[in-house]
Amino acid sequence: MLLQAAALTREAFAPFGDVIQCTGSEHYPINAGTTERYHNLAKVDVSEAGGRPIISIFVAQPMPGNPVDLRLMERHPLASQAFMPLSASRFLAVVAPPGEFRVGKLQAFLVAAGQGINYAREVWHHPVLAIDVETRFLVVDREGPGHNCDEIELPAPVQVAF
Amino acid sequence: MLLQAAALTREAFAPFGDVIQCTGSEHYPINAGTTERYHNLAKVDVSEAGGRPIISIFVAQPMPGNPVDLRLMERHPLASQAFMPLSASRFLAVVAPPGEFRVGKLQAFLVAAGQGINYAREVWHHPVLAIDVETRFLVVDREGPGHNCDEIELPAPVQVAF
Repeated sequence: MLLQAAALTREAFAPFGDVIQCTGSEHYPINAGTTERYHNLAKVDVSEAGGRPIISIFVAQPMPGNPVDLRLMERHPLASQAFMPLSASRFLAVVAPPGEFRVGKLQAFLVAAGQGINYAREVWHHPVLAIDVETRFLVVDREGPGHNCDEIELPAPVQVAF
Repeated sequence: MLLQAAALTREAFAPFGDVIQCTGSEHYPINAGTTERYHNLAKVDVSEAGGRPIISIFVAQPMPGNPVDLRLMERHPLASQAFMPLSASRFLAVVAPPGEFRVGKLQAFLVAAGQGINYAREVWHHPVLAIDVETRFLVVDREGPGHNCDEIELPAPVQVAF
């Protein structure tokens, strides 16, 4: 099965979470006009079962080739998880709706340089998929008690082209 | 009064908050070894008085000159506030301890490319100080009820050299 990555837009990604970007966002000047605040771009949803928000950095090696081979999907029942590259790097996001995993429901997005994403709680997603170069991501997710990661191996080979 | 910005280290910044960096941080491989997680680099502390964590982007114009003229300080009584540049850009952090503001307690740090900071709740800090170039920051702070910003004008001219 071959997925073609679509351009990432807020509208297309809305069922799966937030797109973190300046374009099209509410913004206003602060600090005597020297800074523009693009406000509240992602719903950090980590307080289930006594969770707390944390900030981490993921350093991801680029996936080889195009198309890229996918191996498994995961979901976080207790928390959203946001990824923002710390450089002008694009990456891939592969998602499926919450509930029972259905391979036929997979969707792939090419996240452009300058964009980030926040996977909503319970949304199936592939682990971070850097392409082109080693990529550092700022990640906002959860620490706390409880089981917060389900994994599922893909039942048949899936590739994503971009 | 002229402050000289010191290099930013975890030890020096500990009274004021967290340094967000990979160097010297707990880390471990995830995703079958393709990604390294530098874990829990900042204490997001935003739940006072019903607050919730949010992610925003600040686009900051660079301060002209060196030394830079400082105008005012602020503090957030209800929340931490994290700043991570979305490019390999350095910036300045100027802080003073919680409690009654004392100009003699000001300290300045030069935040190197690859580093970010998380101001602890109640720590006095200057509004974001980009230097060199326009800088985009990912910001993790708070939305919710209550008064979360105190500002104070500096009682005498202060400059910071870097």
